[in-house]
Amino acid sequence: MSQLVRVQNFCVSADGFGAGEGQSLERPFGHADPGELVSWAGATASWPNRTEPGGSRGLEDYFTRDFTRNIGAEIMGRNKFSPHRGPWADHEWQGWWGDEPPFHTPVFVMTHHTRPSFTLSGTTFHFVDAAPATVLAQARDAADGKDVRLGGGAHTIREFLDADLVDTLHVAVAPVRLGAGSRFWESPDELRDRFHLEIVPSASGVTHHLFWRK
Amino acid sequence: MSQLVRVQNFCVSADGFGAGEGQSLERPFGHADPGELVSWAGATASWPNRTEPGGSRGLEDYFTRDFTRNIGAEIMGRNKFSPHRGPWADHEWQGWWGDEPPFHTPVFVMTHHTRPSFTLSGTTFHFVDAAPATVLAQARDAADGKDVRLGGGAHTIREFLDADLVDTLHVAVAPVRLGAGSRFWESPDELRDRFHLEIVPSASGVTHHLFWRK
Repeated sequence: MSQLVRVQNFCVSADGFGAGEGQSLERPFGHADPGELVSWAGATASWPNRTEPGGSRGLEDYFTRDFTRNIGAEIMGRNKFSPHRGPWADHEWQGWWGDEPPFHTPVFVMTHHTRPSFTLSGTTFHFVDAAPATVLAQARDAADGKDVRLGGGAHTIREFLDADLVDTLHVAVAPVRLGAGSRFWESPDELRDRFHLEIVPSASGVTHHLFWRK
Repeated sequence: MSQLVRVQNFCVSADGFGAGEGQSLERPFGHADPGELVSWAGATASWPNRTEPGGSRGLEDYFTRDFTRNIGAEIMGRNKFSPHRGPWADHEWQGWWGDEPPFHTPVFVMTHHTRPSFTLSGTTFHFVDAAPATVLAQARDAADGKDVRLGGGAHTIREFLDADLVDTLHVAVAPVRLGAGSRFWESPDELRDRFHLEIVPSASGVTHHLFWRK
């Protein structure tokens, strides 16, 4: 089987934003409350950041436990990695995830301001200044035959969609409106020309959108 | 995390039967048409018996690709393994699955008529004459820390439910009535006292029932 490029558990607001305005160190999702966007995932048994036993094992647990299945690399935009803009003042920042990032694969951070690679608990971050197709070729090599997760944010996923490089998307639409921010779509219908779309409501109030190539 | 006992992709009719009456070599599901019960799974990209590329990658593909995830052993009843009843005339029968059974783990076949273990393309079949808890202890040992799949049929799963040995169930209820056969339940409500239940409709017409322990 060929290596797929997969968007997994990408959370957007009901009005189509992946994050709010005004990202900062204190507010990685800007004015958006990340809890409102991702609480459906945090309630499941397989949520990677779960610290206590328990959690649901219904439909939404299938989504959280699929996050790592057959993934060999991740690609993300710089704003998913860091609140900084422009050249790096230093290389102290190592991402939002503390000492144990949840990836455990090579991660390729797309940025015009490269810096040396580093490894943290099994996750190696590489910094690349290149077009989507070039970054994807590097990620595919690093993935050792497995699939590549396209981790976001909204702008990065749209770049890969524009280049027609995405095979499947799971987008979780939360019942909250942000009004402004990092726009992912005006409507899921924008992708129907190239993708099958299955819409799956859930008890959490989140509506899961599953896309796969026609 | 502890080893779970999981029922995966178990297909039943709308009136609660896992198979029809009159199992034979030619008709492993008796008078039931297995296509009507399992066609939802065959339409997905991750169906293990798929011989051609393609297939859907929507909701139901999550179910088929979860079939092997973190499974280290399977337990099944003799009637899932074979159409024969009573003592074995010989040991030529090696299951319904041809040269490459889809399990790729140890499989424990519950039967009053034991026979020597054998291996076929990475699947080793063991034949055990013991109570559910005893068989489960053997399967857990063999699973090497992974979960144990309880493969069916209906009677075998009910035995494990009666012994309160099941952690999660995914039961796919197909829109077909059989009238008679191997009964799994009168109603999914029978399990609500001990399990959470999430009911997920799908575009195929199959209604997926997801249970996990309270």
